[in-house]
Amino acid sequence: MTARAHGSDILVVGSVAFDSIETPSGSVERALGGSATFASVAASYFASPRVVAVVGEDFGDEHFARLERRGIDTSGIKRVPGGKTFHWKGRYHDNMQDRDTLETRLNVFEGFDPGLSERFRRSSHVFLGNIDPTLQAKVLDEVEDPRFVGVDTMNLWIAEALAGLKEVLRRVDVLFINDEESRQLTGERQVLNAARAIMTLGPKYVVIKRGEYGALLFGAELSLFAPAVLLPRVVDPTGAGDAFAGGFMGFVAGAAEITRSTLARAMRAGSAMASFAVERFSIDGLLELDSSRIGARLDDLESMCSLA
Amino acid sequence: MTARAHGSDILVVGSVAFDSIETPSGSVERALGGSATFASVAASYFASPRVVAVVGEDFGDEHFARLERRGIDTSGIKRVPGGKTFHWKGRYHDNMQDRDTLETRLNVFEGFDPGLSERFRRSSHVFLGNIDPTLQAKVLDEVEDPRFVGVDTMNLWIAEALAGLKEVLRRVDVLFINDEESRQLTGERQVLNAARAIMTLGPKYVVIKRGEYGALLFGAELSLFAPAVLLPRVVDPTGAGDAFAGGFMGFVAGAAEITRSTLARAMRAGSAMASFAVERFSIDGLLELDSSRIGARLDDLESMCSLA
Repeated sequence: MTARAHGSDILVVGSVAFDSIETPSGSVERALGGSATFASVAASYFASPRVVAVVGEDFGDEHFARLERRGIDTSGIKRVPGGKTFHWKGRYHDNMQDRDTLETRLNVFEGFDPGLSERFRRSSHVFLGNIDPTLQAKVLDEVEDPRFVGVDTMNLWIAEALAGLKEVLRRVDVLFINDEESRQLTGERQVLNAARAIMTLGPKYVVIKRGEYGALLFGAELSLFAPAVLLPRVVDPTGAGDAFAGGFMGFVAGAAEITRSTLARAMRAGSAMASFAVERFSIDGLLELDSSRIGARLDDLESMCSLA
Repeated sequence: MTARAHGSDILVVGSVAFDSIETPSGSVERALGGSATFASVAASYFASPRVVAVVGEDFGDEHFARLERRGIDTSGIKRVPGGKTFHWKGRYHDNMQDRDTLETRLNVFEGFDPGLSERFRRSSHVFLGNIDPTLQAKVLDEVEDPRFVGVDTMNLWIAEALAGLKEVLRRVDVLFINDEESRQLTGERQVLNAARAIMTLGPKYVVIKRGEYGALLFGAELSLFAPAVLLPRVVDPTGAGDAFAGGFMGFVAGAAEITRSTLARAMRAGSAMASFAVERFSIDGLLELDSSRIGARLDDLESMCSLA
């Protein structure tokens, strides 16, 4: 809803990490992960992502290559000589929802100081992955007049960096958050009230992520729902929320304008990308897609929702 | 999908009870409740329910009158002289989902022996509320060639009367069950697999109730989703599942034929009726509705799901 020319570029800022994960379906060691990784790969099917992140010297050329093959601009991923990449180690419970963090080594991520190139500053769309709100704000300071900004957050920042988070929320178009976090942030039990309370903090839209139960989008006078794709098997839920946000933001970035229909379709795109993410470990489920496989999932979602 | 003439009558068998309930929103003493009560009142907006149940002498004419004002045929509700009506006492936790049963007095319900009048035996549609599978089977033995049969059950019967429950499942068109019970019954974690496993036991359709997360219907080559209506306030979740089933079954009974579209609309009708049920204690939220209030909720659901 702006006269500005349509741009399908999307700046993605967040973590690029190695994940070591055990789930009831198996395990994986030091696999490519992180919020910026999942979000940018998911977005890459709808728009042109550029990533800002930091990695260590152990992040090999082959890892860059995997992202680049998806058309992702990795020039903003800073490789720190002698440094080690952020490493998260976790184990999921049998319900595939609860998980225990076994180890978190921030490594080079501890000193992450996102700086944007001239070109990146002119990004039309921005997705701020789940990082310290201070860093999210710094990125927003550098981007020139973005058309649409999405932000993710988590319980940690709500508990320990609330003032900073609220500063960021004043400056974004959409917040991605889960049910539990939305209650923590607002004190409201009912999702409708929580979403309304969040919108008073700044975001025009709130997306409530509910895992296998789908996701809701709220705006002024607007409530949209997208179911989760029904899957016979979930291998690893890690990155599902980031893939959802990436699919959503990528779809919006690739759309000519932001209408109700754009948002409804973006929700379905997010749901589809999340479903691919959880079917395999790491980003493996997101790498070899095409418009026909994505379209089949979108058709499934339409069929689930349609009255016809 | 039968040549049999369309009939909009629906036989509802289950409990008629007094509930004493505490929720974070308030409390109520000896209020009209029970599965047959909620289901028949919800169904009454779409079809003509007839109830088979048992109550005590403490079940006054005023209680019968409340049901009859909804056009419900109460001639099958047997009042036992000197007996006391089934009384359930419970308290909900702050999350409005978990609850503790404080007291269960089966009273006359312990000797419930559903017998059908000649007229009731010719019911075209049947909803078997959550009672002992032996009694559900007895009702099915008596009904002559029903067009569509729905059944509800619970964890207790899955644990303690599994063989009887499986006998019933072989004879019904649709099972209403929640996520947790579907896992208990099948051992399958993923809802898609649980539903498929249940269909091999007999039901053509399975409706998985997920409370505030909506509900799913599965059939052969068919998956339908209905979101829950977004409410600013929930007063008492008791009876939501029964109201859902009643709305669904009533809608099916009122439909000329059972098509994909009928089932999709029935899911939305169920969701709408469940939403009215939880807004007030007892059946108060379900009594004073009309087609415009129900239509407004159905419009809300359509709006949430639509891509337009």
